Amino acid sequence: MITTPGFKPAFQQFAQGGWQGIQHSQQFGGQGLPKLIATACHEMLHSANLSFALCPMLTDGAIEALLTAGSDAQKATFLPKLISGEWTGTMNLTEPQAGSDLAAVRTRAEPQGDGTYKVFGTKIFITYGEHDMAQNIVHLVLARTPNAPEGVKGISLFIVPKFLVNDDGSTGARNDVHCVSIEHKLGIKASPTAVLQFGDHGGAIGTLVGEENRGLEYMFIMMNSARFSVGMQGIAVSERAYQQAVAFARERVQSRPVDGSAREAVTIIHHPDVKRMLMTMRALTEGARAVAYVAAAASDAAHQHPDEAVRGQSQAFYEFMVPVVKGWSTELSIDVTSLGVQVHGGMGFIEETGAAQHYRDARILPIYEGTTAIQANDLVGRKTVRDGGAVARAICAQIVETEAALGQHGGAAFTAVQAQLARGRAALEAVVEFVVANAKADPNAVFAGSVPYLKLCGIVFSGWQLARAMLAADAKSAEDPNFYAAKIATALFFAEHVLSQSSAMCAAATAGDVEVTYFRV
Amino acid sequence: MITTPGFKPAFQQFAQGGWQGIQHSQQFGGQGLPKLIATACHEMLHSANLSFALCPMLTDGAIEALLTAGSDAQKATFLPKLISGEWTGTMNLTEPQAGSDLAAVRTRAEPQGDGTYKVFGTKIFITYGEHDMAQNIVHLVLARTPNAPEGVKGISLFIVPKFLVNDDGSTGARNDVHCVSIEHKLGIKASPTAVLQFGDHGGAIGTLVGEENRGLEYMFIMMNSARFSVGMQGIAVSERAYQQAVAFARERVQSRPVDGSAREAVTIIHHPDVKRMLMTMRALTEGARAVAYVAAAASDAAHQHPDEAVRGQSQAFYEFMVPVVKGWSTELSIDVTSLGVQVHGGMGFIEETGAAQHYRDARILPIYEGTTAIQANDLVGRKTVRDGGAVARAICAQIVETEAALGQHGGAAFTAVQAQLARGRAALEAVVEFVVANAKADPNAVFAGSVPYLKLCGIVFSGWQLARAMLAADAKSAEDPNFYAAKIATALFFAEHVLSQSSAMCAAATAGDVEVTYFRV
Repeated sequence: MITTPGFKPAFQQFAQGGWQGIQHSQQFGGQGLPKLIATACHEMLHSANLSFALCPMLTDGAIEALLTAGSDAQKATFLPKLISGEWTGTMNLTEPQAGSDLAAVRTRAEPQGDGTYKVFGTKIFITYGEHDMAQNIVHLVLARTPNAPEGVKGISLFIVPKFLVNDDGSTGARNDVHCVSIEHKLGIKASPTAVLQFGDHGGAIGTLVGEENRGLEYMFIMMNSARFSVGMQGIAVSERAYQQAVAFARERVQSRPVDGSAREAVTIIHHPDVKRMLMTMRALTEGARAVAYVAAAASDAAHQHPDEAVRGQSQAFYEFMVPVVKGWSTELSIDVTSLGVQVHGGMGFIEETGAAQHYRDARILPIYEGTTAIQANDLVGRKTVRDGGAVARAICAQIVETEAALGQHGGAAFTAVQAQLARGRAALEAVVEFVVANAKADPNAVFAGSVPYLKLCGIVFSGWQLARAMLAADAKSAEDPNFYAAKIATALFFAEHVLSQSSAMCAAATAGDVEVTYFRV
Repeated sequence: MITTPGFKPAFQQFAQGGWQGIQHSQQFGGQGLPKLIATACHEMLHSANLSFALCPMLTDGAIEALLTAGSDAQKATFLPKLISGEWTGTMNLTEPQAGSDLAAVRTRAEPQGDGTYKVFGTKIFITYGEHDMAQNIVHLVLARTPNAPEGVKGISLFIVPKFLVNDDGSTGARNDVHCVSIEHKLGIKASPTAVLQFGDHGGAIGTLVGEENRGLEYMFIMMNSARFSVGMQGIAVSERAYQQAVAFARERVQSRPVDGSAREAVTIIHHPDVKRMLMTMRALTEGARAVAYVAAAASDAAHQHPDEAVRGQSQAFYEFMVPVVKGWSTELSIDVTSLGVQVHGGMGFIEETGAAQHYRDARILPIYEGTTAIQANDLVGRKTVRDGGAVARAICAQIVETEAALGQHGGAAFTAVQAQLARGRAALEAVVEFVVANAKADPNAVFAGSVPYLKLCGIVFSGWQLARAMLAADAKSAEDPNFYAAKIATALFFAEHVLSQSSAMCAAATAGDVEVTYFRV
């Protein structure tokens, strides 16, 4: 399959620059830089082109899964090529009957007695499942071995490369995995979404990763990495839409100012509602970015900090944040890219303007790598109920410290932010207690409010981080008054226009199961 | 230009059935039915196909403008053909430099001394500006006569038919108006959006409608009709997206229920968050529909009620509602169609599923016929400040009556709705007082909050009408218990999940001008 013009040379440059290996182990040719650095780099790549950046993103997931669960031989064979960008990786989970529900996976893997397996089945929605940007494609595939248990406990993970690999590491015969169609999608159209057929001509040869029946566990390594990355995609496409809208608003001349300050038509950036839209875009994007970067730094601390207790706390903090970064940053990207179209007016609806593409592209983000509801299930189940709300409460205690610092400052904008942050944090505490108290006894009530709970986390954590930024900006404001004044204004705007939604989200999160007779089935 | 297959015969059937004339004067061949009846019919037409229904919608606007401002000869020549659907109409306002700002219109009309004018200029974004569904296209065009005043006070309205009309009413020579391109759009792709060139071959022959320099006033007749209709489009596409999502959710099997009530995977309509999404779609759509239908009934009363005082009150009520119906119903259609995609999961992102089309189509609705900000300007300026908030306060007083009725009922759901409605109404009153008090002194502060004010109106009025429906449903519940129980559940859901946002919208509406140094220009 031939990718869109320019992609192949762009990917070669990307690989040659060493960008694929930015956060990966130096042992296999990577740069070994912190996740925080990689996160910022990835954001720029996704802003530049969401479709293009998906290929390295999926490769990152494959690398992490092999690093964790691959054999030494598998690592030696695949990791240097993946990290150098000579080869790319994919995740093969979904089947027509198995989307969010991996228990329904039917693809099967038959042992050949020589250490290899033959894989048979159909996988759908495989991002970069076929392309011409690299020499080889390393498919990581979920499948069942004969006599495996039913459900998710009977799924194993296999490496099935497009071209088999010779003992000297060179690529050999074509494997029996073929792209049988490419989807026609709403957005990210330059990213090939493949239907892959395994084993129609005798069987696709694969090797087992780790142990049998532990495939889901390994795949979750890829998933968790990918979930954070998809959250970054939401931030990246929002930033792109914002920059485009600001540039348009500075150029487009239309109508006189409402305050009568000019008798001629002015650039639309002077109109209050255009400012409101741009500020909303910026505040949502900067808030989500701050949360994601703080989470990335926690992930680094979880791995590198000398103090074991700090490592543990940092890991718990990061894990709590992952569904929020994924769910909230992608949900807001729909609103932000929609506002980007709106700022352009009628021109925004014309495809050649380019604003509409971000609106189309963003729409997949709250769906793939686990829908927002799946993230919210994770937030409720693994991240809140499992520890009885301990991590959630510890985060709220940290927010209280920021509230106190805002109060100590005492400026009008700071106390206004303090008030909204305190209200938001109290709303969050109330929802956490509701979730912990009712998850077992009334799961329908809790899960009916799980997405509002996730969104509440998103706005409270964003408001918190913007408040921290506001305090830092105030302390440094002499260095660059305009820049830091904008940070303060953004925090205040977020508090009044976004964080003010906390009581509504609390109401929705705790409203409970609605008896809906319409839906009786 | 050839329209999409099926459109031409469908439009012929539509015309032959008399649907174009449903609310128009019997004097010219219409059916003379109330706007309320027409509104329900139009909603179904828009649900069926937004692109198709735009053609009759624009024709309705042309009919109303000619009925109000046309000469007897113009009425006799054009109205019967437009009302029968033999010919269709267009609105020609926008030019490349003149979108929302009609003061910048440059198209000119030169009198020929025989009662006709020659029109020269370029108009863009002309919906159904060229097509093959009818014998003739009647363009209503804004243009300037020689020596006309600058700005909006120098704009006149002209009829410029595609084919000139002979004295016997038959179509004659081709007029000098030509489609020079069709836009490539994000959505409503089956609706041809034309760039029209007037007068490149000697001049397009037109006749003046009404008096010179009063064109904007006449065009506003079309605009106000069209604004209400675009609001209905928002409701219609939301309903369509909802029905499609419900049907999918009843069929798609995925994952076991969270409450452990089944050991097998179930249809996704059993999952709490899918229910929440569907209920959100339904509650938003039903609320907006109730507001629009009540507004349409008020418009009928404004024209037909025997009591002059009731006519006056009804007209004021209707005019207050128009920007809310337009702005709120279209803004929510983006959220509802986005949820429609989300319910479909990954399949929603594949174009052949059909869910994504509604998301693409809906995106134009908050833009054309005046953006949401333009509606909000109208709400603030003409509808709130001009009468010092009198109509807004009168509406709030009516809401208080509904609150009292909910309190008298006393059931738990009814008092819960009462509490949210009272909070919402109080928030609305606070914003109205803020707007009235500050519009002159600090217009930037008021207009920075104008869209949140409009949205607050949307949710409070929707919550109010759903509360009225809840009371009616309770009284009639024995007749069809499931149907009426669903109405009660929808009102309660709306109160807790949507109306609960009133305090946030009040905060945003009254936050005032944000000092945004980033935007200093």
